[in-house]
Amino acid sequence: MTDRINAQLAFLTEADKLKSTLRATTLCDGSRRENSGEHSWHIALYAMVMAEHAARPVQVNRVIKMLLIHDIVEIDAGDAPIHGDHDPVAQDAIEQRAADRIFGLLPHDQATEFRALWDEFEAAQTDDAIFAKSIDRVQPVIANLETGGGTWPAYNVTPAQLETRVGSKVARGAPAIWEALKARIATWFAHNPPT
Amino acid sequence: MTDRINAQLAFLTEADKLKSTLRATTLCDGSRRENSGEHSWHIALYAMVMAEHAARPVQVNRVIKMLLIHDIVEIDAGDAPIHGDHDPVAQDAIEQRAADRIFGLLPHDQATEFRALWDEFEAAQTDDAIFAKSIDRVQPVIANLETGGGTWPAYNVTPAQLETRVGSKVARGAPAIWEALKARIATWFAHNPPT
Repeated sequence: MTDRINAQLAFLTEADKLKSTLRATTLCDGSRRENSGEHSWHIALYAMVMAEHAARPVQVNRVIKMLLIHDIVEIDAGDAPIHGDHDPVAQDAIEQRAADRIFGLLPHDQATEFRALWDEFEAAQTDDAIFAKSIDRVQPVIANLETGGGTWPAYNVTPAQLETRVGSKVARGAPAIWEALKARIATWFAHNPPT
Repeated sequence: MTDRINAQLAFLTEADKLKSTLRATTLCDGSRRENSGEHSWHIALYAMVMAEHAARPVQVNRVIKMLLIHDIVEIDAGDAPIHGDHDPVAQDAIEQRAADRIFGLLPHDQATEFRALWDEFEAAQTDDAIFAKSIDRVQPVIANLETGGGTWPAYNVTPAQLETRVGSKVARGAPAIWEALKARIATWFAHNPPT
């Protein structure tokens, strides 16, 4: 039993490092960049509140668990902002190695279970994963709207790019939420046209 | 539908502020104080990994939800460190008002549901709440052990005080975890006796 608890604590202590992985997005008050640990909490809470808007019925408890671990590979791989330039194939290889290492700290049965849940999220094929991916895209939009466009001006993001990179993914899993966001985004760009 | 989504987003945007509530405990690398948002993520993950060690069988999905919202009142009330001096009656009154305000941002049905879950956590009478409270006490012990005693030297904490303030609560909900921690704590104090 002690070996098992020690393996679990080793994983949980390693997970602490996710609080030091910085994302492109800031907090809603603009005071600092958000880290991937607090982001993971926030979107798990998003899922808990907004699961009723999923495109197809989801098991909210599985979605929450998925979101609690969805970014843990960023401890090794860092965060790849959706509006930034990065090589998706190279990024994927780094994330796969990170998943091997980090989930591998857990007792074997849990390593297998957590890895399967993360693989399901990444594949974005099941109803639960599609909704989880949608929610993961919603929270940064809100943060950007709360902070004068957030990262959009720096990355010269246009409404068309937002529709492609964010809208299509949010709408796939949570169409009603995208409708609500789209209205807010349109208002924002009407006052702040891209240069 | 839009009114409902807007109320949900108002709650979720308000929740962002929990990322700016600082706790006494630091990250495991000692680099900075932990905030209550990332702490909430971490202990939800603790519950997901360690539910098998609960003193009595728990519904891990309820425990996770409880832990996702357990600290949200700290947006108004701040964090009251267990080794610090504060008036528990006054703190409780502030937290009750905070719960009224913050959960009250949600649509009525969800406000009622979330408040009931938070009340259950605070009362610490059900098996789920007892385990959730235990897990909430485990993570700071690990952070302190990882950072040269963390807040213990500053608060002159003795092993006997740890047994009373932390051990009794962890052991109530998760006795096997407390046994594992007790061994680590004893080793630490053997090398760092309180002055």
